[in-house]
Amino acid sequence: MTDFITHCRAHLADIKTQGRYRRFTPLQREAATFPVYVMAQDGETRPVTVWSANDYLGMGVDPEVIAGARDALEHLGAGAGGTRNIGGTSPLHDALEAELASLHGKEAALLFTSGFVSNQATLNAILRSLPGFICFSDEKNHASMIAGIKNSPAKCLVFRHNDLAHLEDLLAAAPADAPKLIAFESVYSMDADIAPIGAICDLAEKYGALTYLDEVHAVGMYGPTGGGVSERDGVAHRLTIIEGTLAKAFGAHGGYVAADAVIIDFIRSTAPGFIFTTSLPPSVVGAALTSIRRIRHDDARRAALFANAERLKAKLDAAGLPRMPSVSHIVPLMIRDADLCREVSRLLLERHGHYATPINYPTVPRGTERLRLTPTPLHTEAMMDDLIAALTEIFAALGSKAA
Amino acid sequence: MTDFITHCRAHLADIKTQGRYRRFTPLQREAATFPVYVMAQDGETRPVTVWSANDYLGMGVDPEVIAGARDALEHLGAGAGGTRNIGGTSPLHDALEAELASLHGKEAALLFTSGFVSNQATLNAILRSLPGFICFSDEKNHASMIAGIKNSPAKCLVFRHNDLAHLEDLLAAAPADAPKLIAFESVYSMDADIAPIGAICDLAEKYGALTYLDEVHAVGMYGPTGGGVSERDGVAHRLTIIEGTLAKAFGAHGGYVAADAVIIDFIRSTAPGFIFTTSLPPSVVGAALTSIRRIRHDDARRAALFANAERLKAKLDAAGLPRMPSVSHIVPLMIRDADLCREVSRLLLERHGHYATPINYPTVPRGTERLRLTPTPLHTEAMMDDLIAALTEIFAALGSKAA
Ligand SMILES: Cc1ncc(COP(=O)(O)O)c(C=O)c1O
Ligand SMILES: Cc1ncc(COP(=O)(O)O)c(C=O)c1O
Repeated sequence: MTDFITHCRAHLADIKTQGRYRRFTPLQREAATFPVYVMAQDGETRPVTVWSANDYLGMGVDPEVIAGARDALEHLGAGAGGTRNIGGTSPLHDALEAELASLHGKEAALLFTSGFVSNQATLNAILRSLPGFICFSDEKNHASMIAGIKNSPAKCLVFRHNDLAHLEDLLAAAPADAPKLIAFESVYSMDADIAPIGAICDLAEKYGALTYLDEVHAVGMYGPTGGGVSERDGVAHRLTIIEGTLAKAFGAHGGYVAADAVIIDFIRSTAPGFIFTTSLPPSVVGAALTSIRRIRHDDARRAALFANAERLKAKLDAAGLPRMPSVSHIVPLMIRDADLCREVSRLLLERHGHYATPINYPTVPRGTERLRLTPTPLHTEAMMDDLIAALTEIFAALGSKAA
Repeated sequence: MTDFITHCRAHLADIKTQGRYRRFTPLQREAATFPVYVMAQDGETRPVTVWSANDYLGMGVDPEVIAGARDALEHLGAGAGGTRNIGGTSPLHDALEAELASLHGKEAALLFTSGFVSNQATLNAILRSLPGFICFSDEKNHASMIAGIKNSPAKCLVFRHNDLAHLEDLLAAAPADAPKLIAFESVYSMDADIAPIGAICDLAEKYGALTYLDEVHAVGMYGPTGGGVSERDGVAHRLTIIEGTLAKAFGAHGGYVAADAVIIDFIRSTAPGFIFTTSLPPSVVGAALTSIRRIRHDDARRAALFANAERLKAKLDAAGLPRMPSVSHIVPLMIRDADLCREVSRLLLERHGHYATPINYPTVPRGTERLRLTPTPLHTEAMMDDLIAALTEIFAALGSKAA
C-alpha cells in the first residue's frame, strides 16, 4: 500500500516537473451557440470560442441529431439495460450496424462502446487468432491500436510514419508464411497528414497481409458520402477491416469495425471487449444513426468544413504564424516547447476567450508541442480573425521564445 | 488473409458444434411499459416480459432520469465532442465524479466509458506501476478484470471463489516485500453470492495488500444509500479502490473507480484507456447524475427490489423449479446443459412471451448452464405467476432432461 502510494506521488511529481501534468479545463458545450462554450470562473461565466472540438462537423449540436437522440431516449430509456447478448440488442442497434456496413461498402459492421475499445478489442482478437502473427504498425498509430497490439502474442514491427519503403523492407524480411497484418490510420490527427492507403494495399497484396485502417478522423468528412479517405481514394474494398468512431464527425459516441461478414462474426463471438459490456445507450445509437444518414447526403457540410480549414490556414500564413503543413481539415500550430505551449493556450483562454488544447508529450514527441486547431463549418470568419489577432499579440509578447 | 478467414470459419463452426454460438435476440425496450419489451417477428410485433435486464431498479426508464438525460442532451448536445483533456470535460462530468466519490466515501472518483474499461484500464495501470506486483484474483472474476490483469506484467495468482483459506495460503506463500493486490467482486452476478469483504480486508491488512472491489452488480442496491455491499457491511473505507458501473442499477452508461485522491490522479494521468478516448456524452452523464442523486434517498425502491426477488424465489421453490441458492437480488435457475438451456429460453420466448437469456459456457462453466432471472421492482406478481406457469409447463414437457 505505502509503496504504491509513494510511487503514485513520485510519478505525479515527476510529470509535473516535466511540465506535462494535465489539468482539465471545464468547459460547458452549448448546443445553441457551438462552437462558443461557456466557462465558469470565480462565480461568473463567460463565453469561450473552442478550436479543439472533435465534433468536426458540428453534428453533435445539430437539431435533427439531437431529435434522433431524444426520440430514442424517450421511447427506449436512458440505458441499454444489458450486454448485446443479454437483452441489449435493439432493432436500432441492428439498423446502425447495417448503416455502417453500407457506408463502407462492407458486408457487416460491429458496434463497440468507443473507438478506443473497437481498436483494442478487434486488433487483439485478430492477432491472437493464429500463432506467429506479425503486426506491422505505423509509428504514429493511436494509443488504442497500440493497446490492442501490445497485449497480443503477436510480434509487432513498427514502420516509420507513412514510409512505404520501410514497410516493404519489413514485410520482405518477414517469413513468407507467417500471418501478417498492417495497422495504420488514414488521417493522423496530430500531424494532419494522410496515409497512402492504396499503396499500402498494394504491399499488403504483394506480401499476403491483412490490412486494418483506423478512419476515426476521416469518417463523415472524406469521400463522396463520408465513407472516409478509403472511399475518397476508391480503395475501401481492398481493406480487410475499416475502423471508425461515432464520437467525432458523427457527433455521438461509440466505435465500430466494418469487414466481411465472417470476420465480423468472428470478432463478435470472441472479443471480450465486445461481449462482456453493456451495449450503447439508445440515445447514442439514435443520434449516430440520424447523423450518418444525414451526412451521407450532405456534401455542402463537408465542403464548408474544408473551405473553413483552408481559410484558417491562409489567415495563419498571412499573419506569419508557424502552422504545420496539413493536407487535412486539421490545422496544427507549432510551438515546440511544453511550457510555452501551455502558456499560449492559457493566455488565449484567459485574455482572449479562445480555447485550443495544448498538445504535449506523450501525445506528440517532445520538441514538437503544438496547438491543434479544428475549425468546423460553424466557425465564422469573424471568429477566425479574432483568433489570429489574439495569437499575433501573444506571439509578439512571448517574443522569440515562440518562434 | 486466406489463413485468417479459414481460421474464422473453423472457429465459428466449432462453437456452433459446441452449442455455444450466440444469436442476439433483438428486443426493443419500451420506457413506457418496462419490463415489457416489444419483439418484431414475421412483420408483426408482440410484447415480451424480460427477466434478464441489468437495469435492476428500472431507473433507465424512470421519467426523472430520462428528463435528466434530455436536459443535458438539449443544452449540451449529443456527444461530448472531445476527450477529457481536449474539451470533453464539462461541469456535469465533474459533478458526477464528485457525486460518485461521495457515494463511496472516497476522496475522488474517475469516470470511464464503461465498467469494462474502468476495470481493464485501472487494474492494468496499477499492476504495471511497480515491478514484481502480484495480483490475487478470485477465480470467478469478470472478464474485464481479467483483461486488465492478464495484460499487465504482474504475476496473477487465482484463488478459489470466495475461499479465504486459499487466499491466505497464497498471500502467506508470496514474498513479504512484493507489492500485492487482491481483486474481487461483491455480488457475483452469475452465482448470486456475495464476497466476505471485511474478511478479505483483514487478510489484505495482515499481508500488506491493496484491495480492488468490483461493485458493478451491487451499487445502487446494497447499503443504506446504495453505496454497495461495502457500504452495507461498513467496510468501504477499508478498500483501496471501489469500482462500479453506471449501466446497471443506475440505468445509464459508463463506469468509474473511487479511491484516495492521489490514486485517482495517478490513474487519470497514466491509464491510456482513460486518456485517449472521447468522454461520456452529456445525456449519459445527466441520466447517471439524476439517477444516483435519487437512488441515494430511495430506500423504498431498494426494498421493493429485494421483496420482489424473495417473492420470485419463493414461487420457484413452491413450484419445485430448480433454482440455485442466492443471497442477492439475482435468481438463477439451473439447467446444466447448453442445448437444453437454449431450448427452455426459446420456448419461453416463442410460446409464452417471456425472455430470459440462456447463460452458457464460457460465461459459466460447462454443466452449470442456467437461466438468470433479475426481477425488478417493476415486475408484477401476475408476471411472476405467468412465468412460473410457463416454466412448469416447459419443464414438464422436456421431462427428465431438465431435472
Ligand atoms: C486515431 C484514433 N483512433 C481511435 C480513437 C478513439 O476513439 P474514441 O474517442 O471513440 O474512443 C482516437 C481518439 O479518441 C483516435 O485519435
Ligand atoms: C462484474 C462485472 N464487472 C464489470 C462489468 C462491465 O460493466 P459495463 O457493462 O459497464 O461495461 C460487468 C458486466 O457488464 C460485470 O458483470
